[in-house]
Amino acid sequence: MGGDQGPSAVVAGMAKSADKNPDIGFILHGPSAVLLPLVKKARLSERCVVREAGGVVSMTDKPSHVMRHGKDTSMWSCIEAVRAGEAAVAVSCGNTGALMAISMLRLRRIEGVNRPAIACLWPSRNPGGFNLMLDVGADIRADQDDLLQFALMGTSYARNGLGIARPRIGLLNVGTEEHKGRAELKVAHDLIAAAAGPSNFEFVGFVEGGDIPSDRVDVIVTDGFTGNVALKTGEGTARLISELLRESFTHSILSRVAAVLALGSLKRLSKRIDPRRVNGGVFLGLNGTVIKSHGSADATGISAAIKLSFKLAHSGFNEKLAARIAVGLAQRQAMLPEEGEATL
Amino acid sequence: MGGDQGPSAVVAGMAKSADKNPDIGFILHGPSAVLLPLVKKARLSERCVVREAGGVVSMTDKPSHVMRHGKDTSMWSCIEAVRAGEAAVAVSCGNTGALMAISMLRLRRIEGVNRPAIACLWPSRNPGGFNLMLDVGADIRADQDDLLQFALMGTSYARNGLGIARPRIGLLNVGTEEHKGRAELKVAHDLIAAAAGPSNFEFVGFVEGGDIPSDRVDVIVTDGFTGNVALKTGEGTARLISELLRESFTHSILSRVAAVLALGSLKRLSKRIDPRRVNGGVFLGLNGTVIKSHGSADATGISAAIKLSFKLAHSGFNEKLAARIAVGLAQRQAMLPEEGEATL
Repeated sequence: MGGDQGPSAVVAGMAKSADKNPDIGFILHGPSAVLLPLVKKARLSERCVVREAGGVVSMTDKPSHVMRHGKDTSMWSCIEAVRAGEAAVAVSCGNTGALMAISMLRLRRIEGVNRPAIACLWPSRNPGGFNLMLDVGADIRADQDDLLQFALMGTSYARNGLGIARPRIGLLNVGTEEHKGRAELKVAHDLIAAAAGPSNFEFVGFVEGGDIPSDRVDVIVTDGFTGNVALKTGEGTARLISELLRESFTHSILSRVAAVLALGSLKRLSKRIDPRRVNGGVFLGLNGTVIKSHGSADATGISAAIKLSFKLAHSGFNEKLAARIAVGLAQRQAMLPEEGEATL
Repeated sequence: MGGDQGPSAVVAGMAKSADKNPDIGFILHGPSAVLLPLVKKARLSERCVVREAGGVVSMTDKPSHVMRHGKDTSMWSCIEAVRAGEAAVAVSCGNTGALMAISMLRLRRIEGVNRPAIACLWPSRNPGGFNLMLDVGADIRADQDDLLQFALMGTSYARNGLGIARPRIGLLNVGTEEHKGRAELKVAHDLIAAAAGPSNFEFVGFVEGGDIPSDRVDVIVTDGFTGNVALKTGEGTARLISELLRESFTHSILSRVAAVLALGSLKRLSKRIDPRRVNGGVFLGLNGTVIKSHGSADATGISAAIKLSFKLAHSGFNEKLAARIAVGLAQRQAMLPEEGEATL
């Protein structure tokens, strides 16, 4: 209910996914009076249960308010379906902060996870076409142990979501030299390097902003403040360039003719960097998978988020991630001094 | 001497600028045996003094090492010429960290400036074509008072460098709501808002990564860690898109034909976002103007940095910035509780 384009875009996206994948079923949360006609019109009645929820979380609601007073909302009901095991994954276009708050409250963090993270896909030069970055905004902070956990969670996501057996992990910094950056980054560098062997990933060390879309790395680890700024800066830059490209092709009659001939090339480019195709920030570190779709997602974007959710559910992603964290945590404990040893 | 393309690119850039501007003169620092023939060949002998400096700061030298042992380097000699008042501005393509370290050591900070900042230009939707962001990497930290000073220094730069009488200042955050972000950002928000009237700028409040290239704002204020990541992410995204665009236009014979017709449009776009045209990170907050050109700058890029340096020198920028800081500081002091008052 909380997306910019309202429930009709959501139902249109469901219909797209249902067409392509006969194994998908839906539980749709919100006011039945609004949703049932949409579901019927999209001929989804046999594959979609509508669950009545009268309240709606708006984009301006504060997460703390929603946590206290949001029990009747469609968002709450959606997360509750994952908690109860009825749904394998929750997908929402609504308020990110509120979605994370409800998810934390109801699903709880995986044993050993201090801070959950949001992971996003990023168009890149890699063969698969995408890199993975986390955290892009679950929290504004991350200490060295959080960054290690992000590396482990990112490994698990890259393996199950992108099919990369031995992902290359990079830690985002302002330079690639080991002496650069904030103190916690230097400690995290060593922790992640030590975890690379046991957790079967490759650690490429520090990477810079310019490496995010490169083929040097598969997973970029950073705190949620920096990651969110980087994500939005990248989106903003891509938007500016495509607007300028459009203007440049409508500049004169000759350029309009060129544009018609160049249409195929421009479409190929636009498909490659279309943000709708990479729609879906995945919440990692909770007992249940939650996918945050762009608030402005249309049917194509929502269908992309549903496709991703199906893939993750099908691979048993969340159980594997929990196991990966448990192993990583045991290893990290072994690296800490024994009790008493610290005082020697 | 420290740029990726060596001194011949520097001299070629000087020649370009000298051609366009009869009022420019140069002092070139480095080994005379290498530089004199280049200067002679470029017919710059009458407008360029070569100052002998045998040592070169490499891209991998640590700033602390250069500060202790770098007196014989071309970089040191260049900054020294500004300190002595022989040169109005220093321009270097070399190691950023070392350049900042020598500049801090020899030029010293302007009275009242705690942290100098590096400001860069960013292609944008604004009529002038550029926005301004600082800090993009002078330091990895910035507290609330530093951010206020960045706002004041950015105002002064936008006024004298971009000709914007009343710049719109935005503070970079992960959301535009006032309750979002780190604690120091909330305090900085209020400090900058209070300074807007007396310092004659408009404060638009928090902005997000997507606003950096927008026309909502002229100056984006942030800490050097976040700014550096954003800058490099933007550059990396632009690079990826232009590579994909090139591939897409060489994909088939038809797309190659289209590319020939589209050449004008593509050139217009490329000129608009060409990083060489916005070459030059300006060090703000020191007693003297220092411009850091991209290490990989070619003649066009170096000429752009020289053009910017001429413009800033001509407007008496550095004196105006110092005055702006002095006024801002006095105002900030007036906002702090009087001695003794804090305990009331």
